[in-house]
Amino acid sequence: MPQRDGDHDAIVIGAGAGGLTVAAGLAALGRRVALVEAGRIGGDCTNVGCIPSKRLLHLSRDPALRADPPALLAAVRATRDGLAAREDDEVTTTEGIDVVRGRAALAPGRRVTVTGGDGVRVLTAPHVVIATGSRPRVLAVPGLPAGRLLTNETIFDLADAPRHLAIVGAGAVGVEMAVAFARIGSRVTLVDTADRVLPDAEPEASGALAAALVEQGVVIRLRTRVVAADPATGDLRTDGGAPLHAVDAVLAAVGREPNVGDVAAAVAVVPGGVRVDAWGRTSAPGVWAVGDVTPVAHQTHAANAHGRRIVQAIALPWIPRIGRPPSIPSAVFTEPEVAWVGPTAPERARRCHPRALIDLRVDLAGTDRGLTDGVTRGFVAVTAVRLTGRIVAATVVGPHAADLLPLLTLAIDRRISLLRIQRMVHAYPTHAAAIGAVADAFARRTLPHLPGEALAYGRHRFARSPAGRRHRTT
Amino acid sequence: MPQRDGDHDAIVIGAGAGGLTVAAGLAALGRRVALVEAGRIGGDCTNVGCIPSKRLLHLSRDPALRADPPALLAAVRATRDGLAAREDDEVTTTEGIDVVRGRAALAPGRRVTVTGGDGVRVLTAPHVVIATGSRPRVLAVPGLPAGRLLTNETIFDLADAPRHLAIVGAGAVGVEMAVAFARIGSRVTLVDTADRVLPDAEPEASGALAAALVEQGVVIRLRTRVVAADPATGDLRTDGGAPLHAVDAVLAAVGREPNVGDVAAAVAVVPGGVRVDAWGRTSAPGVWAVGDVTPVAHQTHAANAHGRRIVQAIALPWIPRIGRPPSIPSAVFTEPEVAWVGPTAPERARRCHPRALIDLRVDLAGTDRGLTDGVTRGFVAVTAVRLTGRIVAATVVGPHAADLLPLLTLAIDRRISLLRIQRMVHAYPTHAAAIGAVADAFARRTLPHLPGEALAYGRHRFARSPAGRRHRTT
Repeated sequence: MPQRDGDHDAIVIGAGAGGLTVAAGLAALGRRVALVEAGRIGGDCTNVGCIPSKRLLHLSRDPALRADPPALLAAVRATRDGLAAREDDEVTTTEGIDVVRGRAALAPGRRVTVTGGDGVRVLTAPHVVIATGSRPRVLAVPGLPAGRLLTNETIFDLADAPRHLAIVGAGAVGVEMAVAFARIGSRVTLVDTADRVLPDAEPEASGALAAALVEQGVVIRLRTRVVAADPATGDLRTDGGAPLHAVDAVLAAVGREPNVGDVAAAVAVVPGGVRVDAWGRTSAPGVWAVGDVTPVAHQTHAANAHGRRIVQAIALPWIPRIGRPPSIPSAVFTEPEVAWVGPTAPERARRCHPRALIDLRVDLAGTDRGLTDGVTRGFVAVTAVRLTGRIVAATVVGPHAADLLPLLTLAIDRRISLLRIQRMVHAYPTHAAAIGAVADAFARRTLPHLPGEALAYGRHRFARSPAGRRHRTT
Repeated sequence: MPQRDGDHDAIVIGAGAGGLTVAAGLAALGRRVALVEAGRIGGDCTNVGCIPSKRLLHLSRDPALRADPPALLAAVRATRDGLAAREDDEVTTTEGIDVVRGRAALAPGRRVTVTGGDGVRVLTAPHVVIATGSRPRVLAVPGLPAGRLLTNETIFDLADAPRHLAIVGAGAVGVEMAVAFARIGSRVTLVDTADRVLPDAEPEASGALAAALVEQGVVIRLRTRVVAADPATGDLRTDGGAPLHAVDAVLAAVGREPNVGDVAAAVAVVPGGVRVDAWGRTSAPGVWAVGDVTPVAHQTHAANAHGRRIVQAIALPWIPRIGRPPSIPSAVFTEPEVAWVGPTAPERARRCHPRALIDLRVDLAGTDRGLTDGVTRGFVAVTAVRLTGRIVAATVVGPHAADLLPLLTLAIDRRISLLRIQRMVHAYPTHAAAIGAVADAFARRTLPHLPGEALAYGRHRFARSPAGRRHRTT
């Protein structure tokens, strides 16, 4: 394996979702890549993220398995370790990728210093891709023994379900772990300083999920901060309301910090991480960044998508870099699932005049499949441009919501009107038919009132919003 | 309620899926409709079809519920009866719809004779819509007591699960009931004269489903005909192989017969039912037909789609009737689900030169979500035009396959290439991402070989097929 300096077309620092996408993509196009990794191949997603969490959520659905949490948690680790070993094997045997074990530091001039078991080596190449990822933001709870403070990096190593698990942070990680640990028998208290769970989603999705979590036995404490712990009793004191009693373990899920320490000397860093443009270029020529270390792409699929763009920019630079980047959906694999795509309500309010848009919603409980499958909550909500029916944003809450969303994602990317969606035929009875019902509702609210809708469209489509900015919605 | 002759713009005969779509659609557009029904509002779908079967499939997933089959079957009927009552109430109170209870016979000149509890009445109107549906094809088994022979019209009235249920016919009804009754404790034998289950689907879907059925305890007997029963022992004799022993009940699921008896005097009838064109017109002016009574639309969603076209043709005749009709997907709600859209392999072979097409397949077991959710079988298979990537047909087998299909259905209808699908981003980890993987596979097999693919496209796209017919594939 040639590892001398100068042999490589690119050096990729970090073998997580973003780094692997770039390394594998470049290697497939005939480039020689040095892939530097200090920890395990696969990064957070494979080892301490999506894979173990989704495996835990899946297994915990089975009443027989969840009766034995230690065995279930061991099974989660076995799946995770099997995938990690397979990915390690695949990467190390990929033609064109040289795996360099060690910790990398980037200096100006694309000089990468790797410190590993076998000493220090300096590598350079025409392209350096920063994919150093992120780490859990630290939660300071005075009095809490370090052994009781978990993050996503340690929770999957638990030997058993805690009796009382306090989860601080009601974002995607927090709500998914709340569902999973409630299922396997933990008493779960979910605490957040925000005024709703899943604050990145639409408020109505937060409301539906919160009601479902309560039904599943999760205690939710919003607008609440954990301020201290009593190491003797396990009680957690908060800045308002009663303390949380006898907490065995605290999961800190309060966000991520980009790992910029070893690269900040070479590239411009903003509060969210390494500054990049839409194609992953940093402030330094030939240096790119992808994934959690940037401010823009904090999900595995986002890192993959950005990684693909970097591969194109490096290896196929003659392809014109035109067209809007594709929409990046979000999904949370709770019960019910929550999935959404497009700008959220505050972003829409900045970009569009509210009267240029129409909000549509169909409750799954009112559909025939919702009836047969006993769906009590869940909905498809779509925001579209009036008159034209172009879809701006969509949220789905319900059974396999994340697998219902792609139709709407494609419609957003390809600018397909709800009037076109209305013409397509859904198999009966499916949950996806609720998307057809949303399109029907749009047609009913638009076609009989064309003059009024056209007037509203003409008046507000390019109008200044109440905030005084100029809008373009189509 | 005006029920004198001459008051109505249209008479709809039959209040099943197709008839209700037309009646409700016309009423919503201000037309006055007489809706004639001899049985229950909602037709087969609500009363003896999709609704009770999907409810049974849903409830039988729950290990606690399936331990008590009598209670479970009663719960299925309760849901069904609740929906039927609600639909009856909705229809009878809809402004513009007059429900006429009785049996209708259609004579030339759009004369509808209704024979009901309160005598005989003759109605006429500018439009008559035949929506008389279908009935189960009769299965003759000499020696079988009538009480042991079930159809979809009687199986949901069972008080308990049969000990040994023989299902004759391995189409959609047969395989769904096999899954449901195997779950609630029946020994199930599935018999068909065909050489595979689900003969309308792609052969690879049939194979995956058959393997799953066997795993679920269903005994499958293909290329087999039931020829007689021994009323004493309950044994069923077949035309080959061992008899089926001690069969309590036989479900006949061998297809449907269109209910043309009361309308055949007025319209042209072909072997599959009332002859119609793409807009539902029969051979008689002003007479239309929709749903199971026609040869073309034998599923609830197909009847709905055709019903909408009839509404447009009757009430909005100035809208130009252009554009291809939308694709009609199919779905079977077994474990795993099977869903498909587009022409089947034999139809494709008639219409396209095989070398103009490319077949792509991604197994769900090889995806990350397949790993976390332990999916052992299931796949996304797409047939596309070479070079352009236009999707011709697709099959999905796996968890909620029917809800994964709409992305591909829309792509077929809107002629969206796999190269476009490849650009969209799927949330991670979803089953829908397998569709993205199919698109990736197409790109990998096409983009590096553009000259060869362009040559193949040019040579075969308009070529005569081996069968000597001229083809158009794009």
